[in-house]
Amino acid sequence: MASNNARLRVIPLGGLGEIGKNITVFEYQNDIIIVDCGLAFPDVGMPGVNLIIPDFSYLLRNSNRIRGLILTHGHEDHIGAVGYLLRELKTKIYATKLTLCLLENKLREHHVYDPELLNCVKTGEIFKLGSFVIEFIHTNHSIPDSVAVAISTPIGVIVHSGDFKVDYTPIQSESIDLQRFAELGRRGVLLFMCESTNIESKGYSMSERNVGNMLDRIFQDSPKQRIIIATFSSNLDRIQQIIDCSEKYKRKVTIVGRSMLNAASTAIELGYMTVQKNTLVDPSQVKKYPAERLVIITTGSQGEESSALSRMAESEHKLIEILPNDKVIISATPIPGNEKSVSKVIDGLLNLGADVVYEKLMDVHVSGHAKQEELKLLHALLKPTFFVPIHGEYRHLKQHCDMAINMGMKKSNVIILNIGDVLELDKVSASRRGKIQTGEIMVDGSLNINEVILRERKLLSDHGIMIIMFGIQKNAGQILFGPEIITRGFTCIQQDSKILDNIKKEILNAILNDLKENLVGQSNAIKVIIRDTSQMYLRKELKCSPVILPIILELES
Amino acid sequence: MASNNARLRVIPLGGLGEIGKNITVFEYQNDIIIVDCGLAFPDVGMPGVNLIIPDFSYLLRNSNRIRGLILTHGHEDHIGAVGYLLRELKTKIYATKLTLCLLENKLREHHVYDPELLNCVKTGEIFKLGSFVIEFIHTNHSIPDSVAVAISTPIGVIVHSGDFKVDYTPIQSESIDLQRFAELGRRGVLLFMCESTNIESKGYSMSERNVGNMLDRIFQDSPKQRIIIATFSSNLDRIQQIIDCSEKYKRKVTIVGRSMLNAASTAIELGYMTVQKNTLVDPSQVKKYPAERLVIITTGSQGEESSALSRMAESEHKLIEILPNDKVIISATPIPGNEKSVSKVIDGLLNLGADVVYEKLMDVHVSGHAKQEELKLLHALLKPTFFVPIHGEYRHLKQHCDMAINMGMKKSNVIILNIGDVLELDKVSASRRGKIQTGEIMVDGSLNINEVILRERKLLSDHGIMIIMFGIQKNAGQILFGPEIITRGFTCIQQDSKILDNIKKEILNAILNDLKENLVGQSNAIKVIIRDTSQMYLRKELKCSPVILPIILELES
Repeated sequence: MASNNARLRVIPLGGLGEIGKNITVFEYQNDIIIVDCGLAFPDVGMPGVNLIIPDFSYLLRNSNRIRGLILTHGHEDHIGAVGYLLRELKTKIYATKLTLCLLENKLREHHVYDPELLNCVKTGEIFKLGSFVIEFIHTNHSIPDSVAVAISTPIGVIVHSGDFKVDYTPIQSESIDLQRFAELGRRGVLLFMCESTNIESKGYSMSERNVGNMLDRIFQDSPKQRIIIATFSSNLDRIQQIIDCSEKYKRKVTIVGRSMLNAASTAIELGYMTVQKNTLVDPSQVKKYPAERLVIITTGSQGEESSALSRMAESEHKLIEILPNDKVIISATPIPGNEKSVSKVIDGLLNLGADVVYEKLMDVHVSGHAKQEELKLLHALLKPTFFVPIHGEYRHLKQHCDMAINMGMKKSNVIILNIGDVLELDKVSASRRGKIQTGEIMVDGSLNINEVILRERKLLSDHGIMIIMFGIQKNAGQILFGPEIITRGFTCIQQDSKILDNIKKEILNAILNDLKENLVGQSNAIKVIIRDTSQMYLRKELKCSPVILPIILELES
Repeated sequence: MASNNARLRVIPLGGLGEIGKNITVFEYQNDIIIVDCGLAFPDVGMPGVNLIIPDFSYLLRNSNRIRGLILTHGHEDHIGAVGYLLRELKTKIYATKLTLCLLENKLREHHVYDPELLNCVKTGEIFKLGSFVIEFIHTNHSIPDSVAVAISTPIGVIVHSGDFKVDYTPIQSESIDLQRFAELGRRGVLLFMCESTNIESKGYSMSERNVGNMLDRIFQDSPKQRIIIATFSSNLDRIQQIIDCSEKYKRKVTIVGRSMLNAASTAIELGYMTVQKNTLVDPSQVKKYPAERLVIITTGSQGEESSALSRMAESEHKLIEILPNDKVIISATPIPGNEKSVSKVIDGLLNLGADVVYEKLMDVHVSGHAKQEELKLLHALLKPTFFVPIHGEYRHLKQHCDMAINMGMKKSNVIILNIGDVLELDKVSASRRGKIQTGEIMVDGSLNINEVILRERKLLSDHGIMIIMFGIQKNAGQILFGPEIITRGFTCIQQDSKILDNIKKEILNAILNDLKENLVGQSNAIKVIIRDTSQMYLRKELKCSPVILPIILELES
């Protein structure tokens, strides 16, 4: 039994009010467990940033209490930051077979692969981590081996949904284990934490099988065309269906794009995909097969700049050249923020004469996330005492709460958390108690960058930089040379010497007026004058504000 | 009669393969007319760019042949670049009353307002510009006084749709003049140029009146809440409906946001909007009225950074503070590319406790552009010999062509043009004949910038800049000082002196190795060494590539 004042603490370190970077911490007395450890991809306002990872400082401070890390499935926004975490602390990891295999590659890249830490767990299996008892529950999602997690604690049971949908006719394995959810609900669930990605979509998500049927129709209607299909590299069921279709219509299949090749070969090795002998051919061999006997599966469904499909659309792919009779299917929806880049790829393909099919035209994609009726179903099965929506921007979390309240939950039992908020629970109450210091780490190359750097980059990119140099005699204070002006990323001024001459004149005048001729030890004053004078001139005359960087060299004469 | 080899030439200078910047040139013998002259807003990949205007060089070279500029309606993407054009050449302008009034303000800002040039044209009226005879045809759109244009030429009749929808129950004025389109079709239309914005949307667009009905329901259901509605400042019918609803429910109305205030006062003055005396109150007076007696209409429906609604969402608006009981309605759809900023505004408002209603939740917006069935209707009425889709990205143009072909047009009579393509027509044939030199001008402040500058900005923003300076004795070639390193927007290296020291050492070593000690006149060689050495080091050690700017100062010793 728990002592009287023992409470359960739930602390999200990511995945709230944002897309990606999912990670939640559960604490009871001296034990901590973590569910998921993902990364996020940068916004357009974050130039040079490759990816964003959670701030692990809280975990580092409490590393001796961590009993394990649980991963719900193998997507980047759930496992992508594990390598970064393991560089800083060692912890056991618990996940299903495919998730672990996808993780292994990442850990090797980070030089933190250690088989001793990795524990393969099957759904239905139960394991103990300190005072927590964990059970994985089979769900459906756009990657196989996805699970929800039931966490039994001395205070009560928590159910964490992971990412899920309800697919009654999935491609491989089984439909989501609704019976187990019902059973847990019957016995009593203290807290339900449920993903909110598709809360704005009415109705049910379609079964993955629908896409297969649509693909079959397209294959049947396109007997003479080469077929090129772009999708997410981790959507193995989708890839399986494309391969099945190809085999049915006697076409060879080639897979293009490093991440997809990796995912597919892992999946085939582990038995998550079945491919007939001789179906797959190497991308370098595509020219050997007539168009109507070939299917190319490729990455780049989000219009990512250097992806295989983008390169094809710009006639820059080494092996695949788009031909006027090609049928290109984009079997994906643009993730918010990617609309423009996807549209650019479509335009490029159409311009090369290809026939392009995408979700707006035909149902060549289904979502991997539960829509409203599916979310309601899980709520109805679990009937939790408390509810915390996760995985979504603030408006999604808000709507998910409204849904729970409409289904009969008490308003006070439905709680929106922000990153770092500490939710404390006992058997009958739940409330926010303070906040831990946390945030996000932006990774650029192998360094972390901060808001200051980001702001500098933004300013540089807005109007470029103007470097203004002066050489000053150290002792006599006379001007040795300058002002010299160098610009980068600044409006065509380099050619416009009249403007440059004016700026130089203004600066010289200002210096002589303000400081007279005594410049000894006046470097900082000169810098201020340079900055003010040139900024004022540029704003007034050109309505531009480049970054002004004054450099004063104090030289022995 | 036209001479035997006289041909009609149609040259789009914008509006194809892109959003915005609509402008088309029509030429017959010695006469040129222009339809629309709009601007486009910059992409995320264009830092510092305020707006994009067409390249007018072709028009400047042919200015003596220009007989007039025709404007179809008052949106920025159709009239926004007129001020820039008039700065470079004088031409008469023909438009409906509201369009002219909205234009006037812009021309004044550009100091090119000249009432002599402005001609107010009513729909149905016919006027002659050289060998062209022009008629405006009344249409429906999201701004009043929108027209399509019928251009009679010695070769045949051209119909340019402008932006339109079919609204059988519009708010003010009448339904689109379908009869006139039918009549023109009966007599024979040589070329139809039709907008393609909503070609991907099935069915019909809803009537503007539907939004009014929905607003009425929301007003009725929110008797105790203050209501704040964001929409496009030029959507006067929408604003009218909000005002009507407010008056019905006995609420005062305040309008916030400069562009909307301008548009509304112009519209009221011209009689395009009717408002009861005492309905409008000044934004500074809002605190005098109880929440349930007030409606605030505001700009910022696209999440624009400095708009009124954005500032409210960040608690930074001077006059309006969002309160927990407010109902905020976003009566607009995000324009592609604005999804993220709109979503940020919604999150901000929800965070302040407001109730937010947007299009995904309720039908609080309708499009001003024709959907598939409306487009088909115009095609069916006009039955043109040739068809050129306009106003859309390439995929929209392509789909619009497919629609025309499905409706029975000959494939060879349906033509996709690119910007600058010259379409030559006679009575029986139409074909692309060459291309004129054209493009787009990016405007930053009061200067134009080019691709080179843009690329420099992109590089600067990716990883910042590292300036590496050397002082060299002019005659003896000895190193006087340096390398000195200054960075901006570069990963936290400023604090990391070890990395800086290493770079300095590497550079010095490389210079001594390659050039020995004889540095006289070797500035360029030194620059190359600095660039190569530091780039290699940074890539290898930090996986970063800032812009490297070597500065060599050759000084008298």
